[in-house]
Formats: sequence, C-alpha cells, structure tokens
Amino acid sequence: MSGPRDEIEALIALMARLPGLGPRSARRAVLHLLRKREGQMAPLAAALARVAEAARDCPRCGNIAVGATCEICDSPARATGEICVVEDVADLWAMERGGAFKGRYHVLGGTLSALDAIGPEELRIPHLIARVRDEAVGEVILALNATVEGQTTAHYIAEALEGTGARVTSLAQGVPIGGELDYLDDGTISAALRARRAL
Amino acid sequence: MSGPRDEIEALIALMARLPGLGPRSARRAVLHLLRKREGQMAPLAAALARVAEAARDCPRCGNIAVGATCEICDSPARATGEICVVEDVADLWAMERGGAFKGRYHVLGGTLSALDAIGPEELRIPHLIARVRDEAVGEVILALNATVEGQTTAHYIAEALEGTGARVTSLAQGVPIGGELDYLDDGTISAALRARRAL
Repeated sequence: MSGPRDEIEALIALMARLPGLGPRSARRAVLHLLRKREGQMAPLAAALARVAEAARDCPRCGNIAVGATCEICDSPARATGEICVVEDVADLWAMERGGAFKGRYHVLGGTLSALDAIGPEELRIPHLIARVRDEAVGEVILALNATVEGQTTAHYIAEALEGTGARVTSLAQGVPIGGELDYLDDGTISAALRARRAL
Repeated sequence: MSGPRDEIEALIALMARLPGLGPRSARRAVLHLLRKREGQMAPLAAALARVAEAARDCPRCGNIAVGATCEICDSPARATGEICVVEDVADLWAMERGGAFKGRYHVLGGTLSALDAIGPEELRIPHLIARVRDEAVGEVILALNATVEGQTTAHYIAEALEGTGARVTSLAQGVPIGGELDYLDDGTISAALRARRAL
C-alpha cells in the first residue's frame, strides 16, 4: 500500500513515540486531528515547526532557549547571585511554576552514574564551578530529586564547590503542603522529624 | 511574558486538546519533543503539515482521502457491488484492520439524533441511496455500533433502502472471539443464543 494511508500511518507511528501515548491512543489522536484539520492539525503542525526551528539549549544554563541565551539568563531581574541546580528542564519548569525562586538556573541534564558512564563533564559540573566563580554567586541551591542518584550528585557538587566561597544549600525535606501523615512513607516522616522547627 | 515560553506554552495548549492527553501529559510530551528536536519534533511537524495539507474527505464515501477520491474508492479491486456503512472513519479503519471486507464503504459521520438535530441529510443517507442505485450495489452491510443510536440509524437506513433491490444485512451479534461467557453482559449472551447456529 502506498500514498495517503502510508503518510497517516507514519504520522501515527511518530505520535505513538510520545510519552503517555501508545499505538491505540496515537491512532485516536490522529483521527481526532484528521477531523479538525483546519482548526487543530494545521496550527499544531505550525507550532511544532516553529518551536523545533527556534528552540536550542541555553549555552549558559542548559534551559530551553530561543535567542542566544535563555529568557532567565537574559533577564537582569534574575541576576541575584543565586544559582539553582536542577537535573532536568522539567524540574526547572516545576520550580518556575512555584515562582518562589528569583535567581538563575543550572540544568545538569541528569545525575552522576558510573553504570551509564555519566561523569561530572557530561553534567557540565566544571561549567557550573566556572559560573559560580565568574558570576560572583553567593549561594548554590541544589534542587535535585530526593532519590539516591540525585543525592549522590548533590554531595559530589557540594564537595566540588568547596573553596569557591559560595554557600551550598538544598531544598528542605519534610511533609508536603496538604500531606497527610498516614499516607507518607517512613523516610519522609523521619526526615521531617529530624528537621523539626520551633513553632 | 513573551517569546519562547509563550510559543512553548501555546504548543502545550494545542497538544492538551488531543484526546488522551491532559495539561500535564501534554507538557511531558512537549518536553520529550524539545529534547529530541532533530529526531522527533521536526519530523512530527513535517508529517502533520503534510497530512493536514493533503487530507480531505472523499466526496464519494466520506473516508479520509488524499486524491480526488479515496484509495478504497479508487481501487478497481474493491468494486464488488458491496457497500459497508459505518458511523465513523475510526470504524472504517477497524473494519480494514480486520481485512475481511473487500467492497467499498460509506461513512455516515454519526448517527441519527433528534436531540442534536442530526437528520438523514446530515448523515448523507440520500447520497447513500443514490450510490446504491448508481453503482448497482447488490448488498449493503450495516456495520453500525451495537448501541441504541447505531441500531436506530440502521433500521432507518434499512427502510430507506427498500425498493432499491439491494440486500441489507448487518454484522452478526454474538460472543467475541476469545470471549469468556462469565465476563459477557446478559444482552450479548441472549443475542448469541437467539442467533445460534448448527455446528
């Protein structure tokens, strides 16, 4: 078979590679788009093409950028002498949704892993140390995931930053806002107890 | 905020309108694409643009077409004097996956509904009757969903086709292949019993 069905099947195969979509839901999504060709399919194609063309990694922090550097690095309002270190752009987005952090970021792109041969160079840790010196950074906030890999990486970075003069902190661990003790794991409760504060 | 984040947010909003994706999974899908801009995002944009540009409704049967008529209407091998009536292009695809039907289709685009003001004209039923006469169709197979709306529409079409000389049939109802009686609803078991066949 050649022609239209092939094009549509190729499109379904591409959609099925997205996280959260399988072959069946990709077929359903494509069918939905085929029914709304003017209103949804063409705009989606254009938006994807625009972003694919314009997006690049910020050479300074690793965030998704469109210009030479990303919006956050570009913004003079964000030059607070604080760098928040995150594993991934998704984590950067999550931090930005919180809206509490006003400094700049450094996206590692993963965690240290001897097994996958991911060392400090792959995570741009030397680049982070250079930034801390060059940008006169007073505080480095390690916002890495509370997993073994995240915490191992955090400890490595903290050691590597010794001697730069920057304070190294990490996100507090404890009970999430709205969290019910009964549903929390033991590790979180222990950590929250150890980090208890005076009311 | 203007610029890249706006473009990316617009893309996430478009993705979130796909069936099976919500705001969170759309964000995850876009992030996945941003990480694979060359390998996945650009090809997906191109595939969507190609299909959005080329696809149209087949004026004869209502299937998704690329040329003047769809592949199935174009194929001389499919001119068997049989028309299979389906509600939707999704149902046509499901029939084609089965591969058992070798005739042509007629896509209604829905079912009759007084509430939604969907009458025979909206479903191109007069067009179906004209096709049955013009194409010397010997059999019309109603492959409508086994729902109240589907069956109401099937009965209406069967009546409307009286006098055309075409035999009107519908898909058999019964136990699905691999189906376990214990898990089937009472209606299906009753229908299967009524339609029982000699072994």
